[in-house]
Amino acid sequence: MTPFKRIGPLFTDLYELTMAAGYHRNGIFEPATFSLFIRDHHRQRAFYLAAGLEDVLQELADFRFSPEEIDYLRETGLFQTDFIDYIRQLHFSGDVYAMPEGTVFFPEEPLVEIDAPIVEAQLLETYLLNTIGFQTLIASKAARCVQAARGKALIDFSLRRTQGQDAGLKVARSSYMAGFAGTSNVLAGKLYKIPISGTMAHSFVTAFDTELAAFEAYADAFPDSCVLLIDTYDTLQGARHAVTVGRRLAQKGHLLKGVRLDSGDMVALSREVRRILDAGGLPDVKIFASSGFDEFSIARALEKGACIDAFGVGTKMGVSADAPYLDIVYKMVHFNGRGVRKLSPGKATRAGHKQVYRRLDGRERYLEDTVALREERLHGMQPLLEKVMQSGQILQPIASLDNLRRRAASNLDALDPVYKTPSAHNGYPVSMSRRLLEIQR
Amino acid sequence: MTPFKRIGPLFTDLYELTMAAGYHRNGIFEPATFSLFIRDHHRQRAFYLAAGLEDVLQELADFRFSPEEIDYLRETGLFQTDFIDYIRQLHFSGDVYAMPEGTVFFPEEPLVEIDAPIVEAQLLETYLLNTIGFQTLIASKAARCVQAARGKALIDFSLRRTQGQDAGLKVARSSYMAGFAGTSNVLAGKLYKIPISGTMAHSFVTAFDTELAAFEAYADAFPDSCVLLIDTYDTLQGARHAVTVGRRLAQKGHLLKGVRLDSGDMVALSREVRRILDAGGLPDVKIFASSGFDEFSIARALEKGACIDAFGVGTKMGVSADAPYLDIVYKMVHFNGRGVRKLSPGKATRAGHKQVYRRLDGRERYLEDTVALREERLHGMQPLLEKVMQSGQILQPIASLDNLRRRAASNLDALDPVYKTPSAHNGYPVSMSRRLLEIQR
Repeated sequence: MTPFKRIGPLFTDLYELTMAAGYHRNGIFEPATFSLFIRDHHRQRAFYLAAGLEDVLQELADFRFSPEEIDYLRETGLFQTDFIDYIRQLHFSGDVYAMPEGTVFFPEEPLVEIDAPIVEAQLLETYLLNTIGFQTLIASKAARCVQAARGKALIDFSLRRTQGQDAGLKVARSSYMAGFAGTSNVLAGKLYKIPISGTMAHSFVTAFDTELAAFEAYADAFPDSCVLLIDTYDTLQGARHAVTVGRRLAQKGHLLKGVRLDSGDMVALSREVRRILDAGGLPDVKIFASSGFDEFSIARALEKGACIDAFGVGTKMGVSADAPYLDIVYKMVHFNGRGVRKLSPGKATRAGHKQVYRRLDGRERYLEDTVALREERLHGMQPLLEKVMQSGQILQPIASLDNLRRRAASNLDALDPVYKTPSAHNGYPVSMSRRLLEIQR
Repeated sequence: MTPFKRIGPLFTDLYELTMAAGYHRNGIFEPATFSLFIRDHHRQRAFYLAAGLEDVLQELADFRFSPEEIDYLRETGLFQTDFIDYIRQLHFSGDVYAMPEGTVFFPEEPLVEIDAPIVEAQLLETYLLNTIGFQTLIASKAARCVQAARGKALIDFSLRRTQGQDAGLKVARSSYMAGFAGTSNVLAGKLYKIPISGTMAHSFVTAFDTELAAFEAYADAFPDSCVLLIDTYDTLQGARHAVTVGRRLAQKGHLLKGVRLDSGDMVALSREVRRILDAGGLPDVKIFASSGFDEFSIARALEKGACIDAFGVGTKMGVSADAPYLDIVYKMVHFNGRGVRKLSPGKATRAGHKQVYRRLDGRERYLEDTVALREERLHGMQPLLEKVMQSGQILQPIASLDNLRRRAASNLDALDPVYKTPSAHNGYPVSMSRRLLEIQR
């Protein structure tokens, strides 16, 4: 089964439809090119990781107004009958150029371009911004966490505080693509075939008369995948109870998988707990930690010598708490044979269909990017945008999530470490080609 | 039709299921009470507005594992056959107490309490936190915007940057409940019967040879609901073009509805544009503004004398940008006849089933709240939690969104203005009853 669920063309700001009606009434059906890119004046992120294209391709391939959707639009009283008749048969007939999911990219670089009759291209705006914007936001945040963790495993624990249901699923997918090892989200595990992972909550411990009794009961139910939450009453005493349970499991031929810390000073506690586990003869028992982690606190904890083997990363990654939205925009850059742009202060856009070219060094490291006109060919540089739809048809089979995850890993490897620290906001070099600049005059 | 779509019991952290299996294996099926509340150590919000209950009641009434969901759980290999058989017939058989949507409340006050066999109550945790947490987050943020706008109309423009699809719909619903006048989100308009509203984008203007030609074309298509975006090239010149179009519309018996500003200095521009419109004989043409507004910038713009009749409020409300998540938790407070709590540093919880009582003054203003044991009756105070489900059955018909909106408006009216300014973080007085405190010893 596919996890894709059609949301449909009413998932849009009304003005896309009123503009479409305006074009229709004035007989304007010429081809337009719209470009999706991040402005990012604030430089909150030194790099981004592209995500969300799979949903987009499926939605565009399915783009039709259902009879029920048409009825609603008619009942609003806003639209004339000939426009309603026109959109009744509308589908997406355009071409799509896009960076594959898992591509590292930077502000001012288009990650999607749509060539289509202006009405069709316009109607996609809200959906594209929402879908690509959110998944790219989270993939980028999650990639920062992965870099900070220096090879320690990260698990997505964010579901309880993501901004709604769709967000919960997309966070699991985007963070896995960015290098997380798995998710606590069972539905995402089912839909996207992501490894699922879980321990216990405080309520389980408090449901028993003693912590030790709770640990014994859980170990009995999950002798080979038992991770004990040890901070309900007193973390160090909890660690000693875990040793008791771990030894009993070992006598029966099982291995206590781990303990989890969820409050207090993670550095000091993890070191003391490690000492208690080691002294108890349990050096292979892992320490999981989950307590408001993000890339900043993961990096700090590891720098200070925390003995943490895996991090549960929740809310702050799942809502991208330090930067909860992208300044992502979708702008018409070409219409009816001419470049177009707007000049609004602080929001000016550059005309022209574009391609992004990347120069690599001899070790396949990224050196610099150039945004050029689509028809340019820049010698010795790799184009990043691929044609993924033609005349409304998807051109390649949808890549598996594991393939996208490998692409993300190799893209991240090729990015200079200076851009991958939590505090990085240095600008990777992105220039505009001479021909692109010339047509702006 | 109902906008509700079942998400199902796999929308959960895995540990809820592993704990359920632990309870099942150990024969633990006793009744538990879990309490949902906001901790908010940071005092980012001086009040909250409850939202999300409608979805919760429908999900709980439908709570069943489908055969496909059961198959997935079996295939994980984590669960024993007798547990799989057990959850195959599981449904929600408990009672639910909740504050109705649109109720103003404060940290440490339970807004939902679930009484159910421990397995059932535990399995709801992730879903409840996600659903109530997100909708309450947005309703609270939107209510702050409504207060800052002092009666000016607010329209939800956030869809393009909400965190996913479900978020986009829930933001439209929650902000309308909190007092917004409408949304740009067409699908939300259809699902929730919310008024929809829209203007035009810069791309429409740039699709024509001149701004004036674009304005004329749009006015021709929408002579009675035309709002012109005037900042594509030069806002004041745009205002003059709008006057030209407005006069022509007037000659044909139509009224130009408004102009929209989307960039630049909103105070200065709105005043100059007002002057141009008035001097052009168009005093009834409204000025809409949309440029990164939130409660802070709305309040500032109005204080400085901006001539803005309606605000499009987008991203910052739609993701609650200054506080993109709530510290909302779901904790077991009673189990098998005894109060339970945890002592984790900074995360301690109070035992006992609870009720929240509110004291009003003679003018129906809110004076203070007391959190008490559920069985207490506090003289002269109103209980806020109502029993909304009994033995898994919904007790009352679902209230209409317009009814919830009226409740929110009257709750917000009754709250002292000191809590309703954008910078408010004063603590409204919430105390614990003597009996509640006594059982914590």
